[in-house]
Amino acid sequence: MVQNKSAVFLKYPTEYPATGEHMEIQSKELTVELKDNDVLLRNLYFSLDPYMRGRMRNAKSYVPGFQIGEAMSGFGISEIIESKNETFPVGAIVSGLIGWQEYSVIPGASGLRILPGARESPIPLSTHLGALGMPGLTAYASLKIIGQPKAGETIFVSAAAGAVGQLVGQMAKKFGLRVVGSAGSDDKVDYLINELKFDAAFNYKKNGTILENLKRAAPEGIDIYYENVGGETLEAALEVMKNHGRVIACGMISQYNTQEPYGIRNLSHIVSKRIVMRGFIASDFVGESEVFGKDVGSWLINKEIIYREDIADGIDASPEAFLGMLQGKNFGKAVVKIADL
Amino acid sequence: MVQNKSAVFLKYPTEYPATGEHMEIQSKELTVELKDNDVLLRNLYFSLDPYMRGRMRNAKSYVPGFQIGEAMSGFGISEIIESKNETFPVGAIVSGLIGWQEYSVIPGASGLRILPGARESPIPLSTHLGALGMPGLTAYASLKIIGQPKAGETIFVSAAAGAVGQLVGQMAKKFGLRVVGSAGSDDKVDYLINELKFDAAFNYKKNGTILENLKRAAPEGIDIYYENVGGETLEAALEVMKNHGRVIACGMISQYNTQEPYGIRNLSHIVSKRIVMRGFIASDFVGESEVFGKDVGSWLINKEIIYREDIADGIDASPEAFLGMLQGKNFGKAVVKIADL
Repeated sequence: MVQNKSAVFLKYPTEYPATGEHMEIQSKELTVELKDNDVLLRNLYFSLDPYMRGRMRNAKSYVPGFQIGEAMSGFGISEIIESKNETFPVGAIVSGLIGWQEYSVIPGASGLRILPGARESPIPLSTHLGALGMPGLTAYASLKIIGQPKAGETIFVSAAAGAVGQLVGQMAKKFGLRVVGSAGSDDKVDYLINELKFDAAFNYKKNGTILENLKRAAPEGIDIYYENVGGETLEAALEVMKNHGRVIACGMISQYNTQEPYGIRNLSHIVSKRIVMRGFIASDFVGESEVFGKDVGSWLINKEIIYREDIADGIDASPEAFLGMLQGKNFGKAVVKIADL
Repeated sequence: MVQNKSAVFLKYPTEYPATGEHMEIQSKELTVELKDNDVLLRNLYFSLDPYMRGRMRNAKSYVPGFQIGEAMSGFGISEIIESKNETFPVGAIVSGLIGWQEYSVIPGASGLRILPGARESPIPLSTHLGALGMPGLTAYASLKIIGQPKAGETIFVSAAAGAVGQLVGQMAKKFGLRVVGSAGSDDKVDYLINELKFDAAFNYKKNGTILENLKRAAPEGIDIYYENVGGETLEAALEVMKNHGRVIACGMISQYNTQEPYGIRNLSHIVSKRIVMRGFIASDFVGESEVFGKDVGSWLINKEIIYREDIADGIDASPEAFLGMLQGKNFGKAVVKIADL
């Protein structure tokens, strides 16, 4: 029997969730009695993602909601420390859906995937939650399949220093596009320009409206908008979009924590400019997994793309880190480190 | 030299255009001096379409704007009465872009198409502006290509008694869909249910909000939304749309005559329900013209689909008929008859 610290979901928030009121750290005793095929995980990292705000609702969505009184959950990286499953031996490093907690029992090892060579690889473990994980597949597959990028075109990426945005921008450069990004701080804008080599970037909180900033950064208009934020940014993107533009609707984080969503007034551009706007989730594109892993794995090892993470230290820090991610305070992919390997 | 009555564009409107202020009938003298390959047309019918409101703006769009002081223009049906073009002999019936006027000189017969057998056909000439014209191709091609309809699915069509809507609904029935429509009068709703055999229909001006009406008419939700109106109706459609829904963005007429467009607040459904929304114009689908003409021609002759027109009588009536169409007063495809064959 061990003490098992968890980040527990307490209550449905209507706007931004708060530590203490909507989630808190609890320490519970864990009795481990594995049945056939079960495994016990020692959790190392877990991922904080904008879509999780949608799991804090008592409503039908593409992922089930968090259960009140239970640990929050999401994608993580773990080490198997007890096993009654031959396919998943003790010592294996796995990824899969885990609780936000120090230890997890996974009945039947359900949904786990072994990461071969992960202990020895030069690629850090946390990368499997980011560039080589769901955000990476999201960026790679949606840009290719929905975006249909053509060399010489211009793409605008919002939340461009975020988990998905920084990958989209660098991939779009590889495809020969002019890349414009927005972010919420001058530090992030510097990173986009100087580290990621974006062609233009702006801080959406400064120097006039978002539309004014976007017109300066993309005076010829845009062909593709990679949508992570919604609201006023989406409206500006539709305004400057060229005929036959594509909107890759990955997320709308500005709309997740408000009871008064922003009203988009210029959707008639979708008709007159013959725009396609398409939503998706990463699992729609599992068919791309293999080519994604090959391409992005080699780009990372050869340092042709870089990937910044914002790693919170310890399970105790996870509620604040989650809130910070929803508010855009993270700089890079938001991850919580629970333990060293 | 003949007198040539025309409907002339006077001034850019900001909201609904008005007869006298933004357009008026003028009679001008027409001197006919044809050069090689020119033809003189006696115009018989022309089409009134919602997209024309967009031509009353001093702004870039997919069609050039109306010129102040010149006749308004659009698709029409005409008889050739003088010709210096061997391909287009006197007596031929043609369709093409013409002025809203009694006679038109078409340099080089540019853009004209002969309608073979039109004099003898049981199909009325005006049908080439509607079910067999641009609205027909619009309905047929966009429903098939963007809608990807599957038997058993539910489609919701707004402006369902209009030029495009009535065709979409009947075609969708042929493809095995459950068809729900909205319209702006009880007469139109009766027509949808009793003549066009829609499964459900409602008057969007009555019995609660549009969303309440739509939920009653489509309690299981919708798979496809055929968008002709925009605004509150689009918001309601997104609200009840199922996962992987498709929005065929044909028009947003509710937004064309206002300076205060409606703000759509629930676009985050596009992400969470993985919706595709796509705008288009009929000419994007010229590749479908042949199969369209064959299918719809035979459906019309065999009375498998019916098509209602609202025909204004004479060029003098055209400004009021255009305004009525923008306000939804037409019942069926809006057409102006200028002369008998």
